[in-house]
Amino acid sequence: MNVVKIINIGDELLIGQVVNTNASTMGRMLTEAGFEVAAVEVVGDTRADIAKAIDDGMEHYDVVLVTGGLGPTKDDITKQVLCDRFRSKLVESPVALENVRRIFAVRGFELTPVNRAQALVPECCEVLNNDLGTAPCMWFSLTPSPSPIGEGGRMQDCAPVTTPLSNRRGVGGETVLVSLPGVPFEMEWLMQNRVIPKLQEHLLTETIINKNILVQGIGESFLSDLIEPWELSLPKHIKLAYLPVAGMTKLRLTARYPRDSREPSISSVLPGLYELAGQYIVGEDCETLAELVHKTLISKGKTLATAESCTGGTIASQLTAQTGASAYFRGGVVAYSNEVKECALGVKHSTLEAHGAVSEETAREMAEEVRQRLGADLAIATTGIAGPDGGTPEKPVGTVWIAVADATHTEAQLLNFPGRRRQQNIDRTTNQAYSMLIKLLKP
Amino acid sequence: MNVVKIINIGDELLIGQVVNTNASTMGRMLTEAGFEVAAVEVVGDTRADIAKAIDDGMEHYDVVLVTGGLGPTKDDITKQVLCDRFRSKLVESPVALENVRRIFAVRGFELTPVNRAQALVPECCEVLNNDLGTAPCMWFSLTPSPSPIGEGGRMQDCAPVTTPLSNRRGVGGETVLVSLPGVPFEMEWLMQNRVIPKLQEHLLTETIINKNILVQGIGESFLSDLIEPWELSLPKHIKLAYLPVAGMTKLRLTARYPRDSREPSISSVLPGLYELAGQYIVGEDCETLAELVHKTLISKGKTLATAESCTGGTIASQLTAQTGASAYFRGGVVAYSNEVKECALGVKHSTLEAHGAVSEETAREMAEEVRQRLGADLAIATTGIAGPDGGTPEKPVGTVWIAVADATHTEAQLLNFPGRRRQQNIDRTTNQAYSMLIKLLKP
Repeated sequence: MNVVKIINIGDELLIGQVVNTNASTMGRMLTEAGFEVAAVEVVGDTRADIAKAIDDGMEHYDVVLVTGGLGPTKDDITKQVLCDRFRSKLVESPVALENVRRIFAVRGFELTPVNRAQALVPECCEVLNNDLGTAPCMWFSLTPSPSPIGEGGRMQDCAPVTTPLSNRRGVGGETVLVSLPGVPFEMEWLMQNRVIPKLQEHLLTETIINKNILVQGIGESFLSDLIEPWELSLPKHIKLAYLPVAGMTKLRLTARYPRDSREPSISSVLPGLYELAGQYIVGEDCETLAELVHKTLISKGKTLATAESCTGGTIASQLTAQTGASAYFRGGVVAYSNEVKECALGVKHSTLEAHGAVSEETAREMAEEVRQRLGADLAIATTGIAGPDGGTPEKPVGTVWIAVADATHTEAQLLNFPGRRRQQNIDRTTNQAYSMLIKLLKP
Repeated sequence: MNVVKIINIGDELLIGQVVNTNASTMGRMLTEAGFEVAAVEVVGDTRADIAKAIDDGMEHYDVVLVTGGLGPTKDDITKQVLCDRFRSKLVESPVALENVRRIFAVRGFELTPVNRAQALVPECCEVLNNDLGTAPCMWFSLTPSPSPIGEGGRMQDCAPVTTPLSNRRGVGGETVLVSLPGVPFEMEWLMQNRVIPKLQEHLLTETIINKNILVQGIGESFLSDLIEPWELSLPKHIKLAYLPVAGMTKLRLTARYPRDSREPSISSVLPGLYELAGQYIVGEDCETLAELVHKTLISKGKTLATAESCTGGTIASQLTAQTGASAYFRGGVVAYSNEVKECALGVKHSTLEAHGAVSEETAREMAEEVRQRLGADLAIATTGIAGPDGGTPEKPVGTVWIAVADATHTEAQLLNFPGRRRQQNIDRTTNQAYSMLIKLLKP
């Protein structure tokens, strides 16, 4: 398999000011595209450190992807280091300049010399157009034979300071380095639309197809035992990965076909999985259960209301973080105190008195009341003790009731999480609630 | 300064299943403790890759911190690689075994041979006790003179395969490698209570003191111009860093004192900062504005209710993610649709008709109504167009109204964010709302 090293540049990543989500986004996209990410290195805005990381990448890996250090300010020195490493010089790219001009015209700003410098790139690279920003995306290719002239820019043979080692990781052949901006949404757009398609075209001899299956309500090791016979029966070109997160397990099936192959498709192996574990499978083709709820409600044209106690607004915020949530999300009540459960939700005082806030009866009333009050087709309610404190002998930390309701049914479920970690208990409750809602919606 | 390399081990980090928050947590803690993090490397559960990352660390840096690969399963191979790299062998540590026994006794489980293997460590390391888990924390020291016997375990001279380079980064002298578990809460506890104090004692000749100042309502470059005279007047032992996040800038002052010094304290330089930028300073000594709101409301004994439209529950979920939020957080309404603004919040139909959902009048009514209905001392309300779609010529994407209310006042503010990115607009609105609440609370 083609082996990739990711290099993320930026002091803000080293001092912990910013969490390096670029590495995980790129790792997920590259893995799904059929590449193996073998290393991530984060270095600061320092010439020597960037050069060391790039040299190591060019020596040991097939593909080196670099993010960051491309802005017009003095901190941003990636382009100079790339010139050094490829024995090239900065030239103004007509393609990159046209893109900078276009973006400044859209924004209605005047183009200053500092901004125009964004169009300078090492002469030996090919510019991949960045539709979302002024920083260029630069493709460097090192082939045993001379590189072709890229359509996008002036492409000359790269003459790097370092040469790939004979015992390097990966398949050998062409070595590619791509420099991308560090701004996450620009990076992600470029990976999706420019870098991954071109990497696949240049380096892959196979077609890669992925399928996600979301499984909920069974631990990873029990699931593994349950579906072992099916896993052992998978054809050789289909691989299975377990990706557990917050009480939910994403099973990822990856098929690698030689181009023009007639191997069995992923869909042909699914019935065997459903036969063994169908009762735990919540959905397919989504990254998260929040995304599955979002898509399901939109496709079914149903509306939702939420009544959250222990999850404190997490369900509402995860759903509304997705574009288009207003099509189904009516609203929610975060009923943290008992008074709010009564006055804003209409949970009966007698219910709270007799059973307590963390009880099946309260969860059911919360779901039913919020559904009616906010005029929604469906409702989710959560009430529990997220921890680390606040438990009692009868209701220890980790005791949670969830209810989901439609016009005719209300389903309630008790969870007993073993841990005292607040965020973990909130996240697991949230995923369990999504799963219950999806099941309620199934015919 | 002592220069650190962080190595995070785990296939799940490379394929993007898990975001590497360990690197940012460690980076923040080490920076605040007076160390310079120069590189982070992430590698998979592969012997050769772990060995390469460790060798590079021992050659080039003063301190190497390794997380992950310490569980009892076959994937977890860090200890074997450490034995190889330090020419040591695995022995059972009485200190580590006692800890494993204690934790199994607390959990009421029987100790199996697989679990007992958690107490095996390379003979040349010192075990630092992990109070929260069974995986050991291992300290390896390489000094020009023979290492002392550690109190915690059997400590012998380490004889690493690689030797520090003469031209390495950092101050030289002692080289330390510490291996920690990858579970975030165990790692964080060990860093705070074991690793950082011991690193400071062994390697630092100075005392480090940090102070955070949270600034809101002014862009980073304007702030920089405004406080430049003050910054230039800072004594040499006090450094300033700008850490901007979602419309808020954290100013971090770091003082490095030789031990027993009588240099001026950080507090002596603060009045100059307040003189220039006092109107933008929201608070001190917190990492985030959500934490500042949490602490301020607890200390003042005031309760809060929220009415969120465009932030969709983000304010409620951020506040309730903090332990102890039930002391002040009464609850909230996520009023996504106009009907919910009317029926659950009591915003007047005529207000919505005359001014629209995104208006000063609606924001004020939302804040005042939710405060009264949920019986809180204070309220926050947000209403706006987070994007990327949904704008109109009069109210484009990024138009947001925020209101905060107490028993006698309601303050409202209009924001016009230039970008169309949904999450960024939500996060900026959230921070601005916190800042307005804090200002309302100031005498």
